[in-house]
Amino acid sequence: MSRTPRTDATSTPLYQEVAEKIARLIEEGVLRPGERVSSLRRVSEQHGVSLTTAIQAFIWLEDRGLVEARPKSGFFVRVPRPVLKEPMMARTPRAVSEVTVGALQSRLFEAAMLPRVLALGGAVPSPELLPMVKLNRILASVARRAGKSGVSYDMPPGTEVLRREVAKRVMNSGAMLLPQEVITTCGATEGLMLCLRAVTVPGSVVAVESPTYFGVLHALESLKLRAIEIPTHPRDGMDLEALARVLKTRQVAACLAVPNFSNPLGALMPDANKERLVRMLAERDIPLIEDDVFGELHHGPHRPRLAKGYDEKGLVMLCSSFSKSLAPGYRVGWVAPGRYYEQVKTLKLTSTLATATLPELAIAEFLATGGYDHYLRGARAFYAGNVQRVAQAVAAAFPEGTRVTQPQGGFVLWVEMPPRVDALRLQDEALAREINIAPGPMFSPNQGYRNCIRLSCGVPWSPRLQEALQILGSLAKRHLA
Amino acid sequence: MSRTPRTDATSTPLYQEVAEKIARLIEEGVLRPGERVSSLRRVSEQHGVSLTTAIQAFIWLEDRGLVEARPKSGFFVRVPRPVLKEPMMARTPRAVSEVTVGALQSRLFEAAMLPRVLALGGAVPSPELLPMVKLNRILASVARRAGKSGVSYDMPPGTEVLRREVAKRVMNSGAMLLPQEVITTCGATEGLMLCLRAVTVPGSVVAVESPTYFGVLHALESLKLRAIEIPTHPRDGMDLEALARVLKTRQVAACLAVPNFSNPLGALMPDANKERLVRMLAERDIPLIEDDVFGELHHGPHRPRLAKGYDEKGLVMLCSSFSKSLAPGYRVGWVAPGRYYEQVKTLKLTSTLATATLPELAIAEFLATGGYDHYLRGARAFYAGNVQRVAQAVAAAFPEGTRVTQPQGGFVLWVEMPPRVDALRLQDEALAREINIAPGPMFSPNQGYRNCIRLSCGVPWSPRLQEALQILGSLAKRHLA
Repeated sequence: MSRTPRTDATSTPLYQEVAEKIARLIEEGVLRPGERVSSLRRVSEQHGVSLTTAIQAFIWLEDRGLVEARPKSGFFVRVPRPVLKEPMMARTPRAVSEVTVGALQSRLFEAAMLPRVLALGGAVPSPELLPMVKLNRILASVARRAGKSGVSYDMPPGTEVLRREVAKRVMNSGAMLLPQEVITTCGATEGLMLCLRAVTVPGSVVAVESPTYFGVLHALESLKLRAIEIPTHPRDGMDLEALARVLKTRQVAACLAVPNFSNPLGALMPDANKERLVRMLAERDIPLIEDDVFGELHHGPHRPRLAKGYDEKGLVMLCSSFSKSLAPGYRVGWVAPGRYYEQVKTLKLTSTLATATLPELAIAEFLATGGYDHYLRGARAFYAGNVQRVAQAVAAAFPEGTRVTQPQGGFVLWVEMPPRVDALRLQDEALAREINIAPGPMFSPNQGYRNCIRLSCGVPWSPRLQEALQILGSLAKRHLA
Repeated sequence: MSRTPRTDATSTPLYQEVAEKIARLIEEGVLRPGERVSSLRRVSEQHGVSLTTAIQAFIWLEDRGLVEARPKSGFFVRVPRPVLKEPMMARTPRAVSEVTVGALQSRLFEAAMLPRVLALGGAVPSPELLPMVKLNRILASVARRAGKSGVSYDMPPGTEVLRREVAKRVMNSGAMLLPQEVITTCGATEGLMLCLRAVTVPGSVVAVESPTYFGVLHALESLKLRAIEIPTHPRDGMDLEALARVLKTRQVAACLAVPNFSNPLGALMPDANKERLVRMLAERDIPLIEDDVFGELHHGPHRPRLAKGYDEKGLVMLCSSFSKSLAPGYRVGWVAPGRYYEQVKTLKLTSTLATATLPELAIAEFLATGGYDHYLRGARAFYAGNVQRVAQAVAAAFPEGTRVTQPQGGFVLWVEMPPRVDALRLQDEALAREINIAPGPMFSPNQGYRNCIRLSCGVPWSPRLQEALQILGSLAKRHLA
């Protein structure tokens, strides 16, 4: 770091000079929201100042809202609070619903494949945000070395090197998993499907968050399952009181939830709730399908715990993948289905027989060599900042009365607009302007949330993104005219 | 080719000397059953003899049963006829069956993963028979070049370069297919599953060959479908008279067949039957799911036609893959689902969302550059010879009264032993001797075919394979004692 010349030694105190340099790093995006600022000791060494001066510098930064202290962890670049309110928890109908979202999902993905369309629709990270060069290089190297194993079936449960890496990572999230409890899958999509097939029969009722990921709803629809929507709080996740009431009156075959950074709300279920959720379901021997695809993309310093960590009866079927956090196109995910291990492993044979071998091996190597951890550190800080930036732009551009979530992980925002805005119409209008968004009705089996949209923040900030958000806001305002 | 010195010029006519050299190439396996012998002109040039002498040499070889002439194609190494009779067509029960083969399939694959086990169980080519070095090298190169596209989702219908290559190949088999009619899948397994899901509901009845591939039965089982077994001739495939009778009395949701080299029988349905099959089903608007995974592995000179070529109503759902003929571990297959295109494409989203991008691109490149055709030429000749060799070893080692199929393509043999042989017991006994086989009951929803086994000839000939077949024969004989 270059020292700027001290033109006027008396006008600015030394601590402020240090603080201003750090502030500049934050402003220029070198240090990003959620990222840890150097320790006091390093700041003192780097700038040749005393520890006391370093402390004064941090206080100056904290006073100006640029950093925040976290107990026992040090100082972090402050994640700015959005100026909009959070959406309220929806009062979802208690009725059981047949599901029809397949057509909406196809429509969204077809729009995503059009050239020049800005990809705010799918919860898919932009390739330029992914370590594509490194990962493709590892795959190339693995492919050259693999020989026989590269072309051979990697029959379920899938390659052991990857299952071992997965088990190691899961230990950081408060659950104990052995490699032999893990089955690799073609993305979390296959994992969720296999779990649902293992524990339901056509007509079964599955409790889901509301709003919930349309892929889940589409899976239910294709298996002729019925959904019961559980109201879900934008910050704390599934409402356990509401779930308890449902369980008392209904036969529920399974509960499917995303406790860590739900989709589309980005809600993070508190640990106490995770534990309670697992216990409530265990009392009735109901399996919990836990989808953790966003778990590694926490904006705060700590990886949130898994509901699986509270599982004493083998009823939690944990699904995850590397599609949100590493390489969607590699199609590598995994599932730890607890007591349903044998069923899931056998069903995998009917679904795809095996997961593609070389992509599995490449990801295992990326994990084993620390590349994944290194990449994730940067990705978390990036998403923390980008989500905030998009939320602020929404605040500036969208109609009065708009609410937006404050996710603490992942990279999607849920935007609730005034009731007269029609998200399906907005989707069409936006697409005509080459912007793809996911309309609220995709996230509910009975096509509610008509005034909501989900925005992906997996696209780097750019003038085009900024303009697109302004366009969306203007279009929405016209619905009120 | 080195010339042996002519020690005694007068004792052997020149043509016989030439013929004996060619005979040695055949005996030593340099020229393999089904492979084309050099043209008359080339033989005459290579050996410095007249065309007449070359013709005499071929007549000498033909007289001794070493080569056979094929009209307009030249001389080919004769595929020896096996000494055993073919199995007879089974009289399969007309009842509709609930299916339970999942456990048997898991057992087979688990045995296959044990170290040192000789892989005669799965219909999986040995990796050393596959162009693994070339293909892995192409994947490595594609991965280095791919950049963004390598890590990105390749959403259904899948990458266009591969769909175009598929459409081009299909033209060689008497069907017209456009790239936009093709959807890539994670192997044919996913393709079959998507087709079944598109055209059935739980409880639907599906007409299948008997015996039939256990993967199909397992898929039916997992979808809660019911099978009706149609007797299938070891040489001509599904018995259309029997199918006609079933169609008159039963509501059938779909028919699933492998007209080209069925599994396990290796039957090749005559073209006239293919046409009739398609028409019969079309009259009732019943979809035909045509599985063509073995179609490229014909032992004769011509690629057999597809039933899809007779499809006028879009009712034929054609599934295939590169798993039998190129790279099982790449998990790349495809489906051309006719009028069910939209349903299959949408269901693919719920199953795996997308096929792994880079394996698709690598296979497309291998096809486009002619590597696949080159590889297939050798593979066909190899399998033709190896299947014969295994059949002959079975004839020598197995109990009297054993029958074996005479497949004209693919690489599996169906062995029908005397009624008192118990294939499930034989499977256990063989596994104790480190030999994996597929017992007959796996190929029927009601676990018939107890005295039959399927042997894969996807393992190169070796003393160990020869010994294994002797062991199997001895074990089977003991069942009769």
